Amino acid sequence: MPEHASSTQSQSGTASQGGAAQFGRETGAHGEFVRQANRFTGRITADGSSGLLAEPGRYRLVWSRACPWAHRSVILRRLLGLEDAISLATVDPIRDERGWRFTLDPDGRDPVLGVEFLAEAYRATDPDFQGRVTVPCLVDERTGQVVTNDYPQITLDFSTQWRAFHRPDAPDLYPEDLRGEIDEVADLVFHDVNNGVYKCGFATSQEAYEAAYDRLFARLDWLEDRLRDQRYLCGDRLTEADVRLFTTLVRFDAVYHGHFKCNRNKLTEMPVLWAYARDLYQTPGFGETVDFDQIKRHYYATHHKINPTGVVPKGPDASGWAVPSGRG
Amino acid sequence: MPEHASSTQSQSGTASQGGAAQFGRETGAHGEFVRQANRFTGRITADGSSGLLAEPGRYRLVWSRACPWAHRSVILRRLLGLEDAISLATVDPIRDERGWRFTLDPDGRDPVLGVEFLAEAYRATDPDFQGRVTVPCLVDERTGQVVTNDYPQITLDFSTQWRAFHRPDAPDLYPEDLRGEIDEVADLVFHDVNNGVYKCGFATSQEAYEAAYDRLFARLDWLEDRLRDQRYLCGDRLTEADVRLFTTLVRFDAVYHGHFKCNRNKLTEMPVLWAYARDLYQTPGFGETVDFDQIKRHYYATHHKINPTGVVPKGPDASGWAVPSGRG
Repeated sequence: MPEHASSTQSQSGTASQGGAAQFGRETGAHGEFVRQANRFTGRITADGSSGLLAEPGRYRLVWSRACPWAHRSVILRRLLGLEDAISLATVDPIRDERGWRFTLDPDGRDPVLGVEFLAEAYRATDPDFQGRVTVPCLVDERTGQVVTNDYPQITLDFSTQWRAFHRPDAPDLYPEDLRGEIDEVADLVFHDVNNGVYKCGFATSQEAYEAAYDRLFARLDWLEDRLRDQRYLCGDRLTEADVRLFTTLVRFDAVYHGHFKCNRNKLTEMPVLWAYARDLYQTPGFGETVDFDQIKRHYYATHHKINPTGVVPKGPDASGWAVPSGRG
Repeated sequence: MPEHASSTQSQSGTASQGGAAQFGRETGAHGEFVRQANRFTGRITADGSSGLLAEPGRYRLVWSRACPWAHRSVILRRLLGLEDAISLATVDPIRDERGWRFTLDPDGRDPVLGVEFLAEAYRATDPDFQGRVTVPCLVDERTGQVVTNDYPQITLDFSTQWRAFHRPDAPDLYPEDLRGEIDEVADLVFHDVNNGVYKCGFATSQEAYEAAYDRLFARLDWLEDRLRDQRYLCGDRLTEADVRLFTTLVRFDAVYHGHFKCNRNKLTEMPVLWAYARDLYQTPGFGETVDFDQIKRHYYATHHKINPTGVVPKGPDASGWAVPSGRG
């Protein structure tokens, strides 16, 4: 979502101006949604060669439970057992005109960073920053500065640069022998699905919407087929690619189907993908990080140009997520 | 829909002022939708005792393919074989600020009434009329005046006052022995379902929306149960009550589920109601009067306060309507 995160291609210094994500500077000449680039692309490395050493107790991950891009990083943190190494700050799903805020915390202030708005950390890092303040981001607790909001790199670095702090039986979500395939699948899924639902929802022309819709459902059909005979996207091992697809799928019926007009069918009407999504949901590290209430409230109460009344749907019935998947 | 028709209780002379249906004069103090009353309640009778005799070639029925209230009257006209007796005018599903218009006709003018906008006929009947111009309505071709826009009475009169002009094997959709039950069921369905979906969609407060949503789905559950062991709402005979429920059900997944946030589940997820709706759809007189394209374009392109971009969803996949129902 434009409020959360940026394109998979990190391009520092080209973030769009202004805070109005919807139908503003992130809309192209033909009514199509064009996601702003990520602003901060620092790396935290195992050997400290980047100038930022991976070490426990130093970095704070900021997320919103609503945001699919941020959600990835929290699932990785759980799966890899990084909870003790990297602390977690959670912003309110409802933003005001000043952006993401720490109103879920006592006194409305993050207890570690000491700020009320995530924008304060952004400005402490780049006083000239004018773009959208996004999650996820990693903040260096020593300086209060944002290291990175480059979400695709954040999760890959959790796998590769923080290995010394993984729990003993942590999965390898980015194994060397599968990296080519993971990257390839994740790229298709990013353009057509992860970002594709936003291209549907934020289109301001019928043509832009229909182009995005067609690509989205063609890709979902392709995924339905791919997952028919294998448990995970890249075979029999859970990888980064699955986490990236999951955070979109789990929001599909709750928000994208109606709010973003991704309505050829619900996820529950694609039997393979629906079982695959439930299989992941029921895997420790996934389901317990999902908050449908915050997800729905964020999208429906924040996008005034899509939902002017701010009324949040009561549906859909989410009880099906607990039904065994029959996979695995 | 406020743009189409009014409450089941006919109250002449109390129509709301102004043309802005959405969130205007038809919104109550608590954000709830309050449908305006019908303005014209003339009766066309078999014996002419009302001053208006039921006779072929005299009256013109005006409808929109989008409108569920108007759709009822066209289904009745087909089922009863009144096509030759009562002529039909079709307005464009997209209105401009002047309301329903005859832009589907050559030169944008109804060939019989000679008007470009339905509002012209309304004003020819009541120069002081300030409310919303609604369909269905019956216009006396001799005078160009609107006889009635009182849609629940229009269909009942088609059954009872136009009997001399029914086709020989026409069904009795309002049989005397079932009238009490038909009226009772239709009243529940009107408040909770037909108008209930509008109360969901036009609510401007979370509370009003949730109250309407709860009543809607409680009633759909009740209908699911009622129709499990009988083919039609009032037993083994098709009646007026079924037509009234059908025109809402056929629009449910296409518009109400997403656009009006009636999203506990799709119609296709309620097996009995879904089979019941398909059974009707596949009955001559029903399916061929359904135009999903016009239905979707009307709702999504007309309700700017719900869907400011005017983008019309491509979904849902409607192919399921052709699948045999297994009922009957």
